Amino acid sequence: MIYLNGEFIPSPQFKIEPNDRGLLLSDGLFETMRVYEGKVFCLEEHYARLLRGANALKIPLPLKLEELNDTLLKLLKENDLANRDATLRITLTRGAGPRGLLPPAEPKPTIMITVAPMPHAEHLPLKLHICTNTRRNEKSPLSNLKSLCYLDNVLAKMEAVEQKADDAIMLNTKDKVACASAANIFIVTHYNTVLTPRPEDGILPGITRKLIIEDCKENNIPLIEKELTVEDVLGAKEVFITNSVLEIQPVAMINDKSVNDGKSGELITELKGLLDKRIKNSIASSEKSPWLYWAFKL
Amino acid sequence: MIYLNGEFIPSPQFKIEPNDRGLLLSDGLFETMRVYEGKVFCLEEHYARLLRGANALKIPLPLKLEELNDTLLKLLKENDLANRDATLRITLTRGAGPRGLLPPAEPKPTIMITVAPMPHAEHLPLKLHICTNTRRNEKSPLSNLKSLCYLDNVLAKMEAVEQKADDAIMLNTKDKVACASAANIFIVTHYNTVLTPRPEDGILPGITRKLIIEDCKENNIPLIEKELTVEDVLGAKEVFITNSVLEIQPVAMINDKSVNDGKSGELITELKGLLDKRIKNSIASSEKSPWLYWAFKL
Repeated sequence: MIYLNGEFIPSPQFKIEPNDRGLLLSDGLFETMRVYEGKVFCLEEHYARLLRGANALKIPLPLKLEELNDTLLKLLKENDLANRDATLRITLTRGAGPRGLLPPAEPKPTIMITVAPMPHAEHLPLKLHICTNTRRNEKSPLSNLKSLCYLDNVLAKMEAVEQKADDAIMLNTKDKVACASAANIFIVTHYNTVLTPRPEDGILPGITRKLIIEDCKENNIPLIEKELTVEDVLGAKEVFITNSVLEIQPVAMINDKSVNDGKSGELITELKGLLDKRIKNSIASSEKSPWLYWAFKL
Repeated sequence: MIYLNGEFIPSPQFKIEPNDRGLLLSDGLFETMRVYEGKVFCLEEHYARLLRGANALKIPLPLKLEELNDTLLKLLKENDLANRDATLRITLTRGAGPRGLLPPAEPKPTIMITVAPMPHAEHLPLKLHICTNTRRNEKSPLSNLKSLCYLDNVLAKMEAVEQKADDAIMLNTKDKVACASAANIFIVTHYNTVLTPRPEDGILPGITRKLIIEDCKENNIPLIEKELTVEDVLGAKEVFITNSVLEIQPVAMINDKSVNDGKSGELITELKGLLDKRIKNSIASSEKSPWLYWAFKL
């Protein structure tokens, strides 16, 4: 079952108009969320990012946070995933439009939500390949939004897999480090400082990235958001990538260079522990956090 | 009626899978073509560009040129446009795929073709706005392909219209001139040389652009493909933009600066005459040019 524009329908009944701008022009946004034991992790943060993107693109967001929460829980239930681990994807497009680039004055957005079961995966250290075939465009506002305009990232992933790597390190147009194909990147220096590229380096401000920045602050682990070079990353003590589905994934090798002798590092282990604590709290929490809905209504 | 994956169907019957990568990841390409009196203009050139893009993205193109030609003529007939002016859009996606960025090993592409009637339009001089909110990424191979990743161009068009202009001038990440939101740009210097940005400046190599380059060569009009600055464009004698639907469109104003006193220039008139001759030849030509199909079969 999927959710489409207010209805829960079997996936084969999915239908959009042939002139949906999401399909024709990548005119839309998405969010991918993790569900642990039926609880959507960091829903408020994902909703806030989706809303920020929708405002930037001037696409109306047809669901309020509370409606979205109810919809997701119902969708999980409809798919027999009410108490299980899963991933959710929300896709929001500007909907159908006339020929040409200019959006209709009053867009009727398309909103689709799909869900897939997600067994808890082992986070084996990854091999990354420094992408050569394309660059993140840090001069586009889309680099900070989770827009449907994702083909550069697909190209980076394809190149990485062709090079027998698991994922890519994408550079920006100034040849500085931005991110992996669908994840943020962090390094740990030999002085045990955590470094990660800034939004202006062309990254999506990831939700897991945000949690790690908060965890570092709360636990007096020095973390600096700064411009990183390829040399910074190749010379790092530990390297890891993060996103909502992978959580924290250690990196064992970049091109032909081994990182931390191919093992997951100490700081990674500490940060994983802190993230696991958040996940456990989310599972243990009551179904709704009324004050958050109240905050969004203001 | 539209064409979808081998069938001609009424537009309301359009259906793709909810995990079509064209919709979820802008993983696909398109072409927009002009039809004059039922004859598809420059079909071979559009097909060659689509094929080049499909090869670059490793998407199989399910139609050969001759099949595409037959399909387009049938689609025009089905829509009572067999002898009329129209525009056609081919949309090719990598089709459905599993979760994540990596394409399936054997993609089953989606191909959709839509058609719309197109009355012959007056080409009144345009007002352009120099886009500030985003940049073309000349370091991505996608800047030279007509991919579905089009949201930066949508943002540029939206900004232009908000600024009471007709279209945008998009700069690349080096702040050099690239193109309009969906058109190539040309300037004529005070020495009557035609200048236009190079592919490496982040432009789509347009079909109309190609014809103009050929027309200049054949008629001893000096034309140079070179990097252009905003100052070059603002100081030009004539400015025009081109694409397959607009053909050649003169520019009367850029931001608050008038171009050629708001009139269409002499060289624009000459180039329009040459393009019109090509269009008339296309209309007068026999339905098929067998040698071209033969050339593509080699």
